[in-house]
Amino acid sequence: MTSKTFRPDWTEKAPPTGTYRSIFKYGDPQHFKHPSDAWYKMIKEDFHLSDADFRNKSKEGLEQVSLNRPVQLKSHQIEAITSIIGPENIALDDYSRVKYASGKTTEEMLELRQGIVREVADVIVHPRDKDDVRKLVEYCHNEKIPVTVFSAGSSVNFGCRPARGGVSLVISTHMNKLLEINELNQTARVQPGMFGPAYEEALNKAPELFKTKHPYTCGHFPQSFEYSTVGGWIVTLGSGQASTYYGDAYDIVFSQEYVTPVGTFKTLDYPATATGPKVNDIMKGSEGAFGILVEVTMKIFRYMPQNRQRFSFMYPTWDAAVNASREIMQSEFGKPAIFRISDPEETDRGLKLYGMPDIVDKFLNLRGFKPMQRCLSLGNVEGDRDYTKLVARKIKAIARKHGAMSLTGYAVRKWEHTRYTEPYMREDLGDYDILIDTLEASVTWDNLHRLHQGVRAYVKSRPDTMCMTHASHFYPQGTNLYFIFIAHMKDPDEFRKFQRGIIDNIQQFGGSLSHHHGVGRMIGPWMKTHLGKEQMDVLRTLKKHFDPNNIMNPGGQLGLD
Amino acid sequence: MTSKTFRPDWTEKAPPTGTYRSIFKYGDPQHFKHPSDAWYKMIKEDFHLSDADFRNKSKEGLEQVSLNRPVQLKSHQIEAITSIIGPENIALDDYSRVKYASGKTTEEMLELRQGIVREVADVIVHPRDKDDVRKLVEYCHNEKIPVTVFSAGSSVNFGCRPARGGVSLVISTHMNKLLEINELNQTARVQPGMFGPAYEEALNKAPELFKTKHPYTCGHFPQSFEYSTVGGWIVTLGSGQASTYYGDAYDIVFSQEYVTPVGTFKTLDYPATATGPKVNDIMKGSEGAFGILVEVTMKIFRYMPQNRQRFSFMYPTWDAAVNASREIMQSEFGKPAIFRISDPEETDRGLKLYGMPDIVDKFLNLRGFKPMQRCLSLGNVEGDRDYTKLVARKIKAIARKHGAMSLTGYAVRKWEHTRYTEPYMREDLGDYDILIDTLEASVTWDNLHRLHQGVRAYVKSRPDTMCMTHASHFYPQGTNLYFIFIAHMKDPDEFRKFQRGIIDNIQQFGGSLSHHHGVGRMIGPWMKTHLGKEQMDVLRTLKKHFDPNNIMNPGGQLGLD
Repeated sequence: MTSKTFRPDWTEKAPPTGTYRSIFKYGDPQHFKHPSDAWYKMIKEDFHLSDADFRNKSKEGLEQVSLNRPVQLKSHQIEAITSIIGPENIALDDYSRVKYASGKTTEEMLELRQGIVREVADVIVHPRDKDDVRKLVEYCHNEKIPVTVFSAGSSVNFGCRPARGGVSLVISTHMNKLLEINELNQTARVQPGMFGPAYEEALNKAPELFKTKHPYTCGHFPQSFEYSTVGGWIVTLGSGQASTYYGDAYDIVFSQEYVTPVGTFKTLDYPATATGPKVNDIMKGSEGAFGILVEVTMKIFRYMPQNRQRFSFMYPTWDAAVNASREIMQSEFGKPAIFRISDPEETDRGLKLYGMPDIVDKFLNLRGFKPMQRCLSLGNVEGDRDYTKLVARKIKAIARKHGAMSLTGYAVRKWEHTRYTEPYMREDLGDYDILIDTLEASVTWDNLHRLHQGVRAYVKSRPDTMCMTHASHFYPQGTNLYFIFIAHMKDPDEFRKFQRGIIDNIQQFGGSLSHHHGVGRMIGPWMKTHLGKEQMDVLRTLKKHFDPNNIMNPGGQLGLD
Repeated sequence: MTSKTFRPDWTEKAPPTGTYRSIFKYGDPQHFKHPSDAWYKMIKEDFHLSDADFRNKSKEGLEQVSLNRPVQLKSHQIEAITSIIGPENIALDDYSRVKYASGKTTEEMLELRQGIVREVADVIVHPRDKDDVRKLVEYCHNEKIPVTVFSAGSSVNFGCRPARGGVSLVISTHMNKLLEINELNQTARVQPGMFGPAYEEALNKAPELFKTKHPYTCGHFPQSFEYSTVGGWIVTLGSGQASTYYGDAYDIVFSQEYVTPVGTFKTLDYPATATGPKVNDIMKGSEGAFGILVEVTMKIFRYMPQNRQRFSFMYPTWDAAVNASREIMQSEFGKPAIFRISDPEETDRGLKLYGMPDIVDKFLNLRGFKPMQRCLSLGNVEGDRDYTKLVARKIKAIARKHGAMSLTGYAVRKWEHTRYTEPYMREDLGDYDILIDTLEASVTWDNLHRLHQGVRAYVKSRPDTMCMTHASHFYPQGTNLYFIFIAHMKDPDEFRKFQRGIIDNIQQFGGSLSHHHGVGRMIGPWMKTHLGKEQMDVLRTLKKHFDPNNIMNPGGQLGLD
């Protein structure tokens, strides 16, 4: 086998049932996305590796999950929980306990490959409805049994890790239905465990399914869309790829119903109120630490894909891309739905990885769009037909003013094909100790360059480490920065240290601790410094109010313990 | 003097210094807006009055304010406060104590006419800066002295009434400057006591005053604009007449700095975050009960009045006006800035009051726009030139589809002249025991008619009572209803009973307790039923956290006591 024809033996089989790999693998067990030849070439070059390094796989996590940890709950407690939830909706086996304790962090993947398991719950329950949740929370509150909620499990911050054992409550098994569309109010009443694609499909098909006049869209499409749920979007404050138009998860919630240890309540159904601080907003982002979201009324939007306008541009520099984006956000002509700009490293690696012919590279160079300077921007506009045309035209005019060249809608169509599937490459790369991970922050325009340069300098200070950055959620006052880093690394301790360094640098250079990944247990330790004592005390006070026995997702969530 | 030529002796002189009238008179002491002849005619007809009833004025409140209530604070406390604030910034005289205890409710006007004064503070202080506020709050917290904030004083819910005496802190005397415009972030850092017109003028003139590239607008224009302050907008959750585009006060706040009894803090400066419940939002609408807003960073907007597009329409029915409005809000082509629809009674009275020639009435009738059915709509679009044209064109098309006739921009220009001055008529009418007052609510589309009919039926069940309603703040999920009632009534007890009945009916028919007037002490008693015990307990918990000694605006604000 010559080096020209060699390809790593990328895994092509679903992980065997009961294995660690079946837990850490992202998404559909039958779906794979292998690094392309260009990816493979780039990785070898950047990390000074040869085909020989890709002949033998690292630990694949193909062993059967075995825990050997006795359940700590007393048998009468398990009996009581069983009688609430029904024997068919409770599990105590090792596999379930590990599966429903795990999210999709790189750290978990590194450790599960080695059979290392951190905290797990004693018992897994699958409530049938909000009444089950209410009874369970009441019982656990009285018995002081910790309760952690698991929904789709794509958390990247240990947000569903049961740090103190107890019960893991899986909300997505049964509580996953679209209950009602109120077309007059343009709202949908939905159970929190409904997955993104099922929710969106039901809204798109509303005329058939709910006899509505129009089809609708949820407007929320995070990269984890296929493995995320409506409730998860809200309690972790997610943000979809089209958030620049539709808003973040925070913005598209109309009202919510929560079960907490001190009672059940539904927030008010009004488009706006002046009746004091809004409890509806106080609950968003509570990450399971105050109570459990059991039903939600979401804002929905007319679905008009036929009006979509796509665009992509190459800017000569990052400065030009940032300045044009700011002008687009502040010019009061409407907003694009998807809007992204990639920094020079992401742009060049992207062009290489997604197959830019040499002739295009030469052409771009000739036109003054130089490697490691030029920046790709892409996006679309959604809404009314004349509106989308107007906004696309305005964006084009501003892009040109800032020296950009239109690449038509081609690049964005290409991006659309991979918009949800990038995470699938992680397992393939991980089989050869290549890790790919992300951290992210929000930032005002006036601090964007400082944050970008500061974090980038830290990541690049580690030898042979890629750092690609984009901004993908825009506001008149600023945007987010999304840092993707790729390294040849397998030691969980080394990874943790590196990751902590990045978070330290995000904080030091004035980024928020998260724009849309949430806090969980991973970011928790930075919260007090970030918010300051006075504001952290507000969160602690609310926690103590809703959960006096500290049973709701205890052990560091939101930095509370 | 024949009845044809008789006109009531409307007051034309500024109220004498030191009188009750100088306190309850709205706005500029030198400015008057008398009821037109059409108004006078309508009132006589509707209330079965004759010129004879307008020959003698009722109590005018022209007596000198005299309180005869000893200051309760101890002299060493007054000395301590004086030493913090400086002797030139403290007042203990009767007039100041009454003035800074009074808002602009009808009840206060009725009572002040009779020399009836409710709770007042012992001492009035005018802090020079946030450091003064911090020291005052610290001292009052330690000494358990109540602190109530007064800013512009246009409150319509006793929100600045010092229910337990103590200190009234007037924030608008010194803390009223625009500190900085950050043009990159499109934000303005401003002191809370800055009045609307001064703030807007400084933003409009930003290129001169702050060397910015563009002029800016605040986007927030409540009817009380001229007698309201930036801080007041936020802590009471106000809403401007152009809120349909720019958002409510809640939406245009970027970050805030508060002084509370348990500490001073500034919320984070990010366009969006996923770091748990947002303290920035928790503080909005706290109405002085958690702490004192001492500085705020507001979102600002490009000021482009040259692009403004005005429109007005006559709809055949209220149903048609409501349906068209809903379609406009849900069609995803952008939003108008000002957008209003008047119900049939408001439409017909408005046409009469603002001088519709008979020929126009006949023409409207001929075209099928019948009295007590037809509904006026008016508004404008702001922003980019092509955007405003597009949105105006779309609105026109939808209006036509719903049977409306365009009245061009004439009606809206006419409305613009009176947009801030309507409250000026209150004193004239009150001189002859005619009261005009308002209550308001927000509502989803599916409950709009029920709320409108329910509240209207209650108001109209009182003989000879006018009830005019409009919707003026629109969202995809619903709107607000603004009820204006006019009656021949002078007894404060009768008024209170009538007003309570309206609030009961707003609640019973599913409206929110307030869309943008706030809670204060007036609406407080309904809060627990409205929010429910669980959500009211959240507000109580926050109150106790920030203000353990219950000194911040105590005595019923937000329904907390």
